[in-house]
Amino acid sequence: MIRVGVIGCGYWGTNLLRNFAEGASCGLAAASDLVAERLAVAKRRYPGVKAAADAAALIEDPAIDAVAIATPVSTHYELALRALQAGKHVLVEKPLAAKSEEGKHLVEEAERRGLTLMVDHTFLYTDSVRLIRELIHGGELGELYYYDSVRINLGLFQHDVNVVWDLAAHDLSILEYVVPQRIRAVSATGLTHVPGSPEDIAYLTLHYDDSLIGHLHVNWLAPVKIRRTVIGGSRRMVVYDELEPSEKVKIYDRGITVEEGSEEAYQLLIGYRAGDMLAPQIGLTEALKGVVSEFARCIETGARPRTGGPEGLRVVRLLEAAGRSMANKGAPIEVPDEG
Amino acid sequence: MIRVGVIGCGYWGTNLLRNFAEGASCGLAAASDLVAERLAVAKRRYPGVKAAADAAALIEDPAIDAVAIATPVSTHYELALRALQAGKHVLVEKPLAAKSEEGKHLVEEAERRGLTLMVDHTFLYTDSVRLIRELIHGGELGELYYYDSVRINLGLFQHDVNVVWDLAAHDLSILEYVVPQRIRAVSATGLTHVPGSPEDIAYLTLHYDDSLIGHLHVNWLAPVKIRRTVIGGSRRMVVYDELEPSEKVKIYDRGITVEEGSEEAYQLLIGYRAGDMLAPQIGLTEALKGVVSEFARCIETGARPRTGGPEGLRVVRLLEAAGRSMANKGAPIEVPDEG
Amino acid sequence: MIRVGVIGCGYWGTNLLRNFAEGASCGLAAASDLVAERLAVAKRRYPGVKAAADAAALIEDPAIDAVAIATPVSTHYELALRALQAGKHVLVEKPLAAKSEEGKHLVEEAERRGLTLMVDHTFLYTDSVRLIRELIHGGELGELYYYDSVRINLGLFQHDVNVVWDLAAHDLSILEYVVPQRIRAVSATGLTHVPGSPEDIAYLTLHYDDSLIGHLHVNWLAPVKIRRTVIGGSRRMVVYDELEPSEKVKIYDRGITVEEGSEEAYQLLIGYRAGDMLAPQIGLTEALKGVVSEFARCIETGARPRTGGPEGLRVVRLLEAAGRSMANKGAPIEVPDEG
Amino acid sequence: MIRVGVIGCGYWGTNLLRNFAEGASCGLAAASDLVAERLAVAKRRYPGVKAAADAAALIEDPAIDAVAIATPVSTHYELALRALQAGKHVLVEKPLAAKSEEGKHLVEEAERRGLTLMVDHTFLYTDSVRLIRELIHGGELGELYYYDSVRINLGLFQHDVNVVWDLAAHDLSILEYVVPQRIRAVSATGLTHVPGSPEDIAYLTLHYDDSLIGHLHVNWLAPVKIRRTVIGGSRRMVVYDELEPSEKVKIYDRGITVEEGSEEAYQLLIGYRAGDMLAPQIGLTEALKGVVSEFARCIETGARPRTGGPEGLRVVRLLEAAGRSMANKGAPIEVPDEG
Repeated sequence: MIRVGVIGCGYWGTNLLRNFAEGASCGLAAASDLVAERLAVAKRRYPGVKAAADAAALIEDPAIDAVAIATPVSTHYELALRALQAGKHVLVEKPLAAKSEEGKHLVEEAERRGLTLMVDHTFLYTDSVRLIRELIHGGELGELYYYDSVRINLGLFQHDVNVVWDLAAHDLSILEYVVPQRIRAVSATGLTHVPGSPEDIAYLTLHYDDSLIGHLHVNWLAPVKIRRTVIGGSRRMVVYDELEPSEKVKIYDRGITVEEGSEEAYQLLIGYRAGDMLAPQIGLTEALKGVVSEFARCIETGARPRTGGPEGLRVVRLLEAAGRSMANKGAPIEVPDEG
Repeated sequence: MIRVGVIGCGYWGTNLLRNFAEGASCGLAAASDLVAERLAVAKRRYPGVKAAADAAALIEDPAIDAVAIATPVSTHYELALRALQAGKHVLVEKPLAAKSEEGKHLVEEAERRGLTLMVDHTFLYTDSVRLIRELIHGGELGELYYYDSVRINLGLFQHDVNVVWDLAAHDLSILEYVVPQRIRAVSATGLTHVPGSPEDIAYLTLHYDDSLIGHLHVNWLAPVKIRRTVIGGSRRMVVYDELEPSEKVKIYDRGITVEEGSEEAYQLLIGYRAGDMLAPQIGLTEALKGVVSEFARCIETGARPRTGGPEGLRVVRLLEAAGRSMANKGAPIEVPDEG
Repeated sequence: MIRVGVIGCGYWGTNLLRNFAEGASCGLAAASDLVAERLAVAKRRYPGVKAAADAAALIEDPAIDAVAIATPVSTHYELALRALQAGKHVLVEKPLAAKSEEGKHLVEEAERRGLTLMVDHTFLYTDSVRLIRELIHGGELGELYYYDSVRINLGLFQHDVNVVWDLAAHDLSILEYVVPQRIRAVSATGLTHVPGSPEDIAYLTLHYDDSLIGHLHVNWLAPVKIRRTVIGGSRRMVVYDELEPSEKVKIYDRGITVEEGSEEAYQLLIGYRAGDMLAPQIGLTEALKGVVSEFARCIETGARPRTGGPEGLRVVRLLEAAGRSMANKGAPIEVPDEG
Repeated sequence: MIRVGVIGCGYWGTNLLRNFAEGASCGLAAASDLVAERLAVAKRRYPGVKAAADAAALIEDPAIDAVAIATPVSTHYELALRALQAGKHVLVEKPLAAKSEEGKHLVEEAERRGLTLMVDHTFLYTDSVRLIRELIHGGELGELYYYDSVRINLGLFQHDVNVVWDLAAHDLSILEYVVPQRIRAVSATGLTHVPGSPEDIAYLTLHYDDSLIGHLHVNWLAPVKIRRTVIGGSRRMVVYDELEPSEKVKIYDRGITVEEGSEEAYQLLIGYRAGDMLAPQIGLTEALKGVVSEFARCIETGARPRTGGPEGLRVVRLLEAAGRSMANKGAPIEVPDEG
């Protein structure tokens, strides 16, 4: 039984607490939060857990094997580094760190010490995303044309990251997991509508070597909640809607056909092919349960996590590129391939 | 009764034929199409109409007062110019012309001759778009934050224009009508997935002087049809969905609130306000009926059409800017304010 | 070319006019309507057509081969009878007649004279309904459990028939076509909310010999339009939604499983099986085009129409049974099997 | 702080455990379940709670003030009676009891002892249902025409109650709360499709003195989950959809208009009025939290609960009437007004 301490008992930390408390191979041993009230709630719910305002105490506690960090992004680096240095395995809420240099350091530190460093890119542990990866990697969609995601809703504003770091981080982690091609450059445009606040709406265009294009719309100021990704391929197309209660992934047997042209005026040379739609049955297991299992499996076996340090660092690099592009009127910013 | 001749009896021409045939102040007098079969269908349906393969005959016919042109974009200029020169009033399918110089010439020609030149930007004659204009101009939405449109579906590919000229032309005409601010620059990225064909997917970002941002996603390769515009304002937000059978415009009493900050860690300074949603009853009159009425009204009174030559030219300028941006890796292309 | 005269140029008659005018093997030759304005509209649209206020003139016209009747239900019998007696083939708007005795007489008259008598049960000519019939008859759904239809919207009130004769007539014709079993008895409850008007809301329960149950909800007073049928079977289940733009028929690989019981307390013996959903591509040809083709085919070949007199009479018998049940507090009314 | 013991730690019991554990005025003190595994899970999650396999021990425990019963319906009576006799306040999962005599006895017992007896008709503690009640009681809908509910989904089969007792119990409790009129009689038709199992699909018609009609469709064998109630009134109409994420209650300014008739043939006398739709902002507080608060409030003040014994008994009487009607081919069964 891996004894885990959770740092940060806010919205996401609460979910971590529950999943570690109820998980099979991990056990919840300690919790920490600077806000006394939150810590009290956690303590009331899990009376057997050690509660400490100070994260350092938790990190240094020899009775703790691993640490899960669900604090503001700006604190990820320091907390994760101290935990690794204290010999703990680390699960960090996404994104891994606020800067790629920090992320790189964490990856190296974990590597050197032989510790598991994992980022909680939750969606990669849903059956929907796994199915989409299989469809693409198995060639079911044919040649990829585009990957278009809309992830918008009202709030919550965060004061230490903008909407790109908050929402697009999800899309970038999914995209890199399901698409075999690598993003070469990122263009982004973002705006803030509250003076002094980070960007609340942004559009990202992702450039590839071939004729694949990626595009993300993230927005904290939308009156409705939309979570929809459309993926176009030469053989089939997919609509992935997280908010659909049961038919989250729809596979359309649709595409284009190129016919022999004719001489006749106004004639269209290209048509479309419209076929059936299939919505496979999707398991509804909570994704975070899969995160916890993967974390435990990697600690026990030394395996590399699906969303380990390098994958988390890659997302940070992409987020940084988006930020630089936003500061440069949307100019494409290249992203190096290596970590 | 204004006697109208329709040039081009394809998909849209068929709708024009019907609306002129049944309109009150206009009458359908002649039809022309290079494709014999189409002309035969039109002739069978409207036996009293003069049918001619040659558009020139129709244009020169002294029994014709006005001409409606629903042919490929590349032919708009020549046909419209000849019609104006023959003293006919002209209604052109959108966009006005394939180049802004051509459009400018048409505007000047119509001006000089005192003829009505109108572009069939159909959506501006729907109750939905008129309502949205009133909401924005009346201050109901407050300060505008963003205008985001998704207009995607499968096909139809067109061989003489790309998806921007086909689909974004709708959005640009709507946007310029409902938003008081002027677009200053356009950034666009587009791709083609059929060698030798025009772009089939594109993203346009529209830049303004203030913190308003516009964004359009147009796509001929989507497995599902989406026609949805989200407009964010400081007081209210609108979702406009053309495909909704009855609730096409939804007004959300939602927005952000900026509260006094506190010293407490992790505290959010900005919240959101969630209120009621109102979907006003929308009239379902066919928009093209309004186009035909407006055309007749302007011919009879000499009034300037809601979608006259200058408005049509403005859309062409924006489309050209998008094209230039696509050729320049998405660099913002400025759009001059004047015609 | 079969020369057809259309009696009644209202909402549905207008669609008949258009389909006969544009059909391949039928031609529109004459039109009749008591309302002068409607007739004028028809005449303007189809100038070559003979227009007569008096239906009798149309019926007696030797230049007419067949008559399509789209008048109020109460006039179907007399008009259809006169047309058959004048040697014309007859297509009647649904339902066939206002009483089963009238319907029976029409069936006999057409039989005796060797004329085609067909009822315009339009939905049987959609690809959706044909697909559902194939699924059920081919055993794809397994044993049928239930057939549940909701067909509700606002208006239009009709003064000569109630909501059952107006809307449930559609469902009953579909149901009898797609389900092999025969309805044995009908229970119905209906209410009127406008004094002196026919029922505006009704619920019909359809009883079978086996454990299949049918149920229809029809309603002229609903704020939203719903057209949805759910069909449950032991192997698969179908949701048929006419208003879905493309995925009108969804086939769910879902059902129940009966497991070996255990002794443990509270244990559930029966579970459910949740599998994929498939929405086959559905053709979108206008159903009325199929009606017109079928009418022409039967006239030309002497074949029995899919929705001939006997099928139309069966629907009238079911509607009558519903009426008797409504008058008897919902008591089940048996429906004889024979015509 | 009221010390509560929860009997039954299954699906719903788990929710009760959580709400009592986290509630303000109640505290979770004990839990009981015949299934050892469930009890272990509860014990692990709430280590401070007394766990007992035997409900009797919990009921007799003097450290317990109140008991919440979430066991199969057939056991409600005995457990609740013993708890009342032991001087405990009682919250029973719906329905109150398996028979009205049992329910009546419980109501009398609680009355005699001055104890709070409450039924967990959860939906009455949602903001949606409260809003609908206010709209109807405030006259916003005008004269009520109909109340139509569809509550269908796949599973879960229950072995001790049929689909009416499981699902229609929700609708009947809501209906009696929001509609001022009293149900006079119930007609019902139900079928089972698994030999030896309770009915899995049923239709209930609810008769009133005036021209209001109620109708419920409940179904455990539907491939899709639907939770939708349509309420028609002379002034406005409501669509209530529990599954809508934010717009759960939509108020349509629609209805019928009765115009002066004319002499013209085929003229419709009755039209419809189509106006705006308003979806008020609905609070999303968990309903069960409101149940727990109401239970505590009534225990502390002696107030009668919104869903007390008499209200629960009324629902049982209606369910019994439905059962008798199902056994009598759908014949209407009168329901006495008094408890």
